[in-house]
Amino acid sequence: MSDEHRIGILGSGDVARGLGTALLRAGCQVMLGARTANKDALLSWAEENGIDARAGTFAEAAEFGTELVLNCTAGAHSLTALADLGDALRGKTLLDVANPLDFSQGMPPRPTIPGGDSLGEQIQRALPETQVVKGLNTVASAVMVNPSAIPELHHLFLCGNDAAAKARVCAFLRQRLGWQETSFLDLGDITAARTTEAYAPLLLQLFATLQTPLTSIRVVHG
Amino acid sequence: MSDEHRIGILGSGDVARGLGTALLRAGCQVMLGARTANKDALLSWAEENGIDARAGTFAEAAEFGTELVLNCTAGAHSLTALADLGDALRGKTLLDVANPLDFSQGMPPRPTIPGGDSLGEQIQRALPETQVVKGLNTVASAVMVNPSAIPELHHLFLCGNDAAAKARVCAFLRQRLGWQETSFLDLGDITAARTTEAYAPLLLQLFATLQTPLTSIRVVHG
Repeated sequence: MSDEHRIGILGSGDVARGLGTALLRAGCQVMLGARTANKDALLSWAEENGIDARAGTFAEAAEFGTELVLNCTAGAHSLTALADLGDALRGKTLLDVANPLDFSQGMPPRPTIPGGDSLGEQIQRALPETQVVKGLNTVASAVMVNPSAIPELHHLFLCGNDAAAKARVCAFLRQRLGWQETSFLDLGDITAARTTEAYAPLLLQLFATLQTPLTSIRVVHG
Repeated sequence: MSDEHRIGILGSGDVARGLGTALLRAGCQVMLGARTANKDALLSWAEENGIDARAGTFAEAAEFGTELVLNCTAGAHSLTALADLGDALRGKTLLDVANPLDFSQGMPPRPTIPGGDSLGEQIQRALPETQVVKGLNTVASAVMVNPSAIPELHHLFLCGNDAAAKARVCAFLRQRLGWQETSFLDLGDITAARTTEAYAPLLLQLFATLQTPLTSIRVVHG
């Protein structure tokens, strides 16, 4: 199988496993990575999903992802998870899906990063030779992998410093997950991650108000 | 003129004056209030807008507003502006339009209140005998006063602890500013102000990306 079908996913939670399973169905080989490769959630996911589903360490999953690597670790721990991946991610595009939120004190969750910064920027600073694109962090897992679960046009916000990396992520989202080109809204460089990460608590509030995570927003203008 | 047409607006900036002028056109009497009643922006606004337009202090505007009082002060200074208004606002509904943002370090602006709190909640705590409703803070001034400037359905988020006060604000928005009932999305109690205030930087980013402040969002779901 060509390099163009190998996806590395950092993380072993619901978002990581949901994306992993959807990408297997789309014909990709997928490795999920965690701190240790023998984590139960990883092993059982790999076992359930056949020979194209693999479990590894963060570094192994980062190495494995030749088409794309996705950061689906819990936002509060992403920097630690990514700390030693500079070599494995050099020259690669990293799609950062994580939101830096603390749910320990109830809803709405609290941001774990002060104003004037964002997880997307912190990751880009930690990995200067990697092209970080922030995206998919403004919809629930069920919408990431099935955007037409919401029949009306809705928008997905993307940002990052490298135009080619953003184009690569858009192609991935179209080809692997069924997103439409008309859904993409490019907000510019990675500093815009401050704004989409800050939006996440409103999204979670909307899930509660509308009683469904199949919720998104459409930008309309005059 | 009956009490039902008297609106007090705290603030003298663009949002305050824009709302004031629109409310005069809707047949209201309006008093704009600032720290001192002889502020140039207030006096010239009152002079330009005829006998139903008045200028006063914060306390005088709060006292004047029998139908509704709106907080349109700059979010970073709202608590100071409202500090001594407990008596003038007792038993009244206060529509809090302000966003606690610091624009001094460029775009996107930084929140001035740490996670786990909001300006709406701070104001409600400071004025326990006033019914605080957070709203209109998720659209630009030009949309507040002319929601149909965006032809498609778009949503306005409201929250507050008192259901009757929220209904009163909805009636005001319909009757005075032309909002449609279908636009209103009640997010629950005043803690939800954390989520709509946190959304404001994304809104400002969208203005820049789409190059128009006539921008809003429509919530869509599966």
